[in-house]
Amino acid sequence: MIKRKLGIAIVGLGGAVGTTMVAGIELLKKGLIGTEGLPLAGFNIGNLADYSDITFGGWDLFSDHLAKAAEGHDVLTHKQFIAVEEYLRKIKPWPSIGNKQFLANVYGPNQFSYESHRKTIDKIRNDLQEFKKSCDQVVVINLASTEKLAVEGNEIFNSFAGFETALDENSLDIAPAVLYAYSAIAEGIPYGNFTPSVAAEIPALVQFAEQQSVPIAGKDGKTGQTFIKTVLAPALKTRALKVDGWYSTNILGNRDGLALSDEDSLASKVKTKSSVLDDILGYEVEDHIIDIRYYRPRKDNKEAWDNIDITGFLGQPMQIKVNFLCRDSVLAAPLAIEIARLLDLAKQRGEKGVQEQLSVFFKMPMTKKGKPVHAFHEQQKMLLNWLKE
Amino acid sequence: MIKRKLGIAIVGLGGAVGTTMVAGIELLKKGLIGTEGLPLAGFNIGNLADYSDITFGGWDLFSDHLAKAAEGHDVLTHKQFIAVEEYLRKIKPWPSIGNKQFLANVYGPNQFSYESHRKTIDKIRNDLQEFKKSCDQVVVINLASTEKLAVEGNEIFNSFAGFETALDENSLDIAPAVLYAYSAIAEGIPYGNFTPSVAAEIPALVQFAEQQSVPIAGKDGKTGQTFIKTVLAPALKTRALKVDGWYSTNILGNRDGLALSDEDSLASKVKTKSSVLDDILGYEVEDHIIDIRYYRPRKDNKEAWDNIDITGFLGQPMQIKVNFLCRDSVLAAPLAIEIARLLDLAKQRGEKGVQEQLSVFFKMPMTKKGKPVHAFHEQQKMLLNWLKE
Amino acid sequence: MIKRKLGIAIVGLGGAVGTTMVAGIELLKKGLIGTEGLPLAGFNIGNLADYSDITFGGWDLFSDHLAKAAEGHDVLTHKQFIAVEEYLRKIKPWPSIGNKQFLANVYGPNQFSYESHRKTIDKIRNDLQEFKKSCDQVVVINLASTEKLAVEGNEIFNSFAGFETALDENSLDIAPAVLYAYSAIAEGIPYGNFTPSVAAEIPALVQFAEQQSVPIAGKDGKTGQTFIKTVLAPALKTRALKVDGWYSTNILGNRDGLALSDEDSLASKVKTKSSVLDDILGYEVEDHIIDIRYYRPRKDNKEAWDNIDITGFLGQPMQIKVNFLCRDSVLAAPLAIEIARLLDLAKQRGEKGVQEQLSVFFKMPMTKKGKPVHAFHEQQKMLLNWLKE
Amino acid sequence: MIKRKLGIAIVGLGGAVGTTMVAGIELLKKGLIGTEGLPLAGFNIGNLADYSDITFGGWDLFSDHLAKAAEGHDVLTHKQFIAVEEYLRKIKPWPSIGNKQFLANVYGPNQFSYESHRKTIDKIRNDLQEFKKSCDQVVVINLASTEKLAVEGNEIFNSFAGFETALDENSLDIAPAVLYAYSAIAEGIPYGNFTPSVAAEIPALVQFAEQQSVPIAGKDGKTGQTFIKTVLAPALKTRALKVDGWYSTNILGNRDGLALSDEDSLASKVKTKSSVLDDILGYEVEDHIIDIRYYRPRKDNKEAWDNIDITGFLGQPMQIKVNFLCRDSVLAAPLAIEIARLLDLAKQRGEKGVQEQLSVFFKMPMTKKGKPVHAFHEQQKMLLNWLKE
Repeated sequence: MIKRKLGIAIVGLGGAVGTTMVAGIELLKKGLIGTEGLPLAGFNIGNLADYSDITFGGWDLFSDHLAKAAEGHDVLTHKQFIAVEEYLRKIKPWPSIGNKQFLANVYGPNQFSYESHRKTIDKIRNDLQEFKKSCDQVVVINLASTEKLAVEGNEIFNSFAGFETALDENSLDIAPAVLYAYSAIAEGIPYGNFTPSVAAEIPALVQFAEQQSVPIAGKDGKTGQTFIKTVLAPALKTRALKVDGWYSTNILGNRDGLALSDEDSLASKVKTKSSVLDDILGYEVEDHIIDIRYYRPRKDNKEAWDNIDITGFLGQPMQIKVNFLCRDSVLAAPLAIEIARLLDLAKQRGEKGVQEQLSVFFKMPMTKKGKPVHAFHEQQKMLLNWLKE
Repeated sequence: MIKRKLGIAIVGLGGAVGTTMVAGIELLKKGLIGTEGLPLAGFNIGNLADYSDITFGGWDLFSDHLAKAAEGHDVLTHKQFIAVEEYLRKIKPWPSIGNKQFLANVYGPNQFSYESHRKTIDKIRNDLQEFKKSCDQVVVINLASTEKLAVEGNEIFNSFAGFETALDENSLDIAPAVLYAYSAIAEGIPYGNFTPSVAAEIPALVQFAEQQSVPIAGKDGKTGQTFIKTVLAPALKTRALKVDGWYSTNILGNRDGLALSDEDSLASKVKTKSSVLDDILGYEVEDHIIDIRYYRPRKDNKEAWDNIDITGFLGQPMQIKVNFLCRDSVLAAPLAIEIARLLDLAKQRGEKGVQEQLSVFFKMPMTKKGKPVHAFHEQQKMLLNWLKE
Repeated sequence: MIKRKLGIAIVGLGGAVGTTMVAGIELLKKGLIGTEGLPLAGFNIGNLADYSDITFGGWDLFSDHLAKAAEGHDVLTHKQFIAVEEYLRKIKPWPSIGNKQFLANVYGPNQFSYESHRKTIDKIRNDLQEFKKSCDQVVVINLASTEKLAVEGNEIFNSFAGFETALDENSLDIAPAVLYAYSAIAEGIPYGNFTPSVAAEIPALVQFAEQQSVPIAGKDGKTGQTFIKTVLAPALKTRALKVDGWYSTNILGNRDGLALSDEDSLASKVKTKSSVLDDILGYEVEDHIIDIRYYRPRKDNKEAWDNIDITGFLGQPMQIKVNFLCRDSVLAAPLAIEIARLLDLAKQRGEKGVQEQLSVFFKMPMTKKGKPVHAFHEQQKMLLNWLKE
Repeated sequence: MIKRKLGIAIVGLGGAVGTTMVAGIELLKKGLIGTEGLPLAGFNIGNLADYSDITFGGWDLFSDHLAKAAEGHDVLTHKQFIAVEEYLRKIKPWPSIGNKQFLANVYGPNQFSYESHRKTIDKIRNDLQEFKKSCDQVVVINLASTEKLAVEGNEIFNSFAGFETALDENSLDIAPAVLYAYSAIAEGIPYGNFTPSVAAEIPALVQFAEQQSVPIAGKDGKTGQTFIKTVLAPALKTRALKVDGWYSTNILGNRDGLALSDEDSLASKVKTKSSVLDDILGYEVEDHIIDIRYYRPRKDNKEAWDNIDITGFLGQPMQIKVNFLCRDSVLAAPLAIEIARLLDLAKQRGEKGVQEQLSVFFKMPMTKKGKPVHAFHEQQKMLLNWLKE
């Protein structure tokens, strides 16, 4: 394995997932944790940056250094916190793009706001250029709280030319997530969207990424409930067990949960979760319901409860219930790390545009063309095949 | 699809699974149910016998005609029962081999008992010859209640010659399940073992099956909890989520449950369930516990509750709980039907001995050589590849 | 026990609960079912009408005879249905008050609509007078689907005089449920409100009931989730286990569920469920969330999943999860029957106005004065004390 | 509230519950935790010793100071541990009675063993006399791991005289738990049995306690699953919901769990759990199954899963499932503290022998005469009435 310094620039660095990524890599370097949860830890692939060669930077609406942020998120154990406190204290997020319009329930003071999109982009590109100086390669990962659902099929998103004009005209339809993605691509920096927000998947940016020879991937990290869903559903199909209904409910109490208690942001989230099932099964499930509730007692410990109604032989009904007591950031952080390493690898391999082989990490995988593969084991197969190349 | 009449001879015909198979095929012929639960219903494979061309026969410790049996098992809805009552009334199980020694908790009067194994085998072969007259091909499926665990590595099982001698000497170590398997193979009839009982997988019979050009498969139908386990475990491995413990408990109240309330039979059952996990994960799970309890209120409605303790990133613990409210016979019957159709297909294709490509149907798949594949999606792949040949 | 014929006039007779009441009493008369689920079956109280002396009448938006209705609700087993089909076929609901404005998602053709409230009331009173001819006493039970939340504190509801004027003026704020309650009271007929709809609990009608010496009780039958809640919460309080959050979700697929998929009706329902917890515990639970979802695969088989977060000694968190797979009508019907019998008993005893001792049957018990008692065992104690009088 | 120093002498001081009691009281004194989980915290009863006036002593098979013990049990949070570490370091358990014969799976070196029971008793009494010097009153609480089930109806237990003779003869039927109880009573010290082990409830010791004017109480602390059972079962009875089956399973990984993985100790535990249900319901539940499994991933975090099958109106089946993710010591420690305070109060009030009013704390409450009350709210009523006296 060659030594290459990989810089991960995180949109939402001070959030629960971001701080967990930073703290986790530091704990790993110190030998205080193992590699549980890191899907590629057991793989030996040349050119894939080593975990211990990763450094972090990023933007956040809150300016707290990461030790303060980590204390608030309460993801680390007390022992782990003490072990990395000093290190985290030194990392402070860069000011973030102001986004009150697109993120209703989370307001933070560490933001800048320009009248022109072009100036905003210049600022972000400048941050990236600075960060790049200390690394062999930078990758941008979006971990910011879910933004309101942008109007889909918005004409300005459909071509690069049109989008450029809209940028010039400071269109209000262009959300911060889109500006980060644009800036990364403009800098030739791979971009991964771990959130449900609209960003690099709009046709204009896909085109831009191809043009710039930049690998991009997304969207919405497949951590808990949807992970289980894409594991179980293909098996039910194999057994010809008809899915009559799937009721999924979630409770979580972290900052992301708060963001989702805004109805429009919730709509954005639910959207990335919902087509999955029908696509896997090959028919429309009559009642596929997804609830997400902000519930403070849980903090970062997300819990999902799924009830699945199936019909088997003789037309007889059966039920499967899955209760996943997970930790949002503990599941998300290692996936975001792997996405960054793989985008860096893709860049080295000369790949550009949508990286479909990263589908296994996303709820709503971007594809070069056509429908995404959702079945978990098929996605993993795609990744393994690409890695073997 | 050519028309061929497939006869399925069931050991334990009057049990819940057996009667459900018979009733289900009849309901299907009448157009009263769909093909839910039949994994191969959507496949169009030449030479695979049509569901409507299946007929049934078989042995049982109870002589009740199948309408009476079905009433007791209470698997059919009342409407379904009425629709097939007359048909079921005409089917009566043949007398079964007496097996008090190997099946402690279930005693039935419809049995015969000879002093010599050879005579017993002649009787079973005779039943098969009679049944064969009305079909193009017969397949034997073992659905009898779980027998006590036979001594493994018993020398008499290790070679065909030794086994023949043991038969001649009427060895008490030879259980009824073994005699049925021997008889089927002797008749050139494919044999599938849907139970955990020791039968065709002993080296002596594997050798005999090769010699006779008979396809055999087993063992222990993968219906509920183990099905879910072999679906989830590979995904946990893919995500590098370390399984620290897996506690599986089951409650069921049918005749099979009663059989399992005998400790020795239970041991036999638990055995087929337990190596699965370590084989898939590639490491030994510290606490893998399997409980099965006879619990009358459920009748045939088996329920499984699984608690899975996993460790993720940062060494942090999470839990997944799966509660499967299933119906034993509703899950089992269509799989047994498919096994029979596939064994018939294998016979037509000239396959002989262990049919590894049927692994997807079994908790403890028999293999030609080496360890079985347990991951559900890999098993299914094996089957699809073979079907495509 | 004296013989007295008790007539129960049901608002929403053709609904799942109403038809289950009628069918259940008939099955009981025929000796085909036992008294499971009937809380007072074991009590021997003089003057309490015998189950076998109950007859039924009532209104419904659908004119189908009850055999047709029962077929649609699918609550009875097929055997039970056949046993009472002929009987049910003879019972047809009377035309119901039109209520499109208050019940958005359920529309039925069996309704009448007058321009004046007074005319409507006359029609309902006439129905009651007719029904009364065949019984010793009539009781009205409201089982209609949940109406939209009426404006609370509406001035017209606050005094009998003001309400009378509003009736004369045909105020649009007066919902059908209120008109049924008014009519019953006017006829001297006890009235029980098994729904969350605003009805007899408005000050004007409480006053009217006192005046007319009519016992009234309500509201919203405590069947499933709230029943469990009022059982568990007092015990958690006794053990000083602090409730930090209680997340309750429900899925149900019957006509009531459909009604609740209308947001305003849902608000009405959630309201009767929500104050319960704080009242029992004596402090405000930070996150008490109630979700109710219309989910068709379940039909009448309501399912509730509760997650309770508690803090114990050392400030340490624990969780209790309760999953209640219930049947809405099977739980509700016997309670509605007991409410009717007890209101009849109250009338015989000369009680008038709010019957607080019936609290055990309601989610939001009406009280003569002050806050209701919610703890289940205390409510039951109240009832037992009154019965012993 | 008068100031009185209450000394609690714990059998099994170094166990998870014992160390949690000691640490908890210290954390409370320091103002670092609240009174959650302490049922009597809100009560203002004269003569009840204040939590801050409690000191601890006790015996254990392991000689580790309590800081070491607490580290192993992993019940305290890291912050809590640091706050009390120094204090706990000073407390070392006294040597315990050797008990290999009665406690198969737990062996510790901090034990003494005499040939004569009388000498053993002298040693224990001496420990108590020493401890008493620093307190106004001492109470003994048994928290030791469950001992094997003693032969019930053993003649030597039936009268004080016979028991004295058996002591003199060093009968092997006399377990350590019995010797501790005898010693306490001999010293005039109240004794509470928080374990399922046979101890003060044998007729000989009840008689001895009366004679010595010593209050005693037991047995087996009602912490998790049985607590929930005695809360739910009375409510099901009130609603006439027939309990057809109740399947209870537990997983726990602490030292107590290890002790219970010995079949004879398990039998002892299951016994105290099992009669509860029938006594509350008034009929025999056909299938009441209790499983307890030693499952290491959970450590002290006990988990219970209950499945309850009930029949309601129309004879239709429903299910309630309760999943309690609790912490064994967090639930047990505050109850053991309250038992000690109440036994001290009873002693002050001149009560002697069995203290039935403490039933609410026990799975199998000792009674003066007749069957115990098991319904949770009735037990609490008994306690409140006694406190009010």
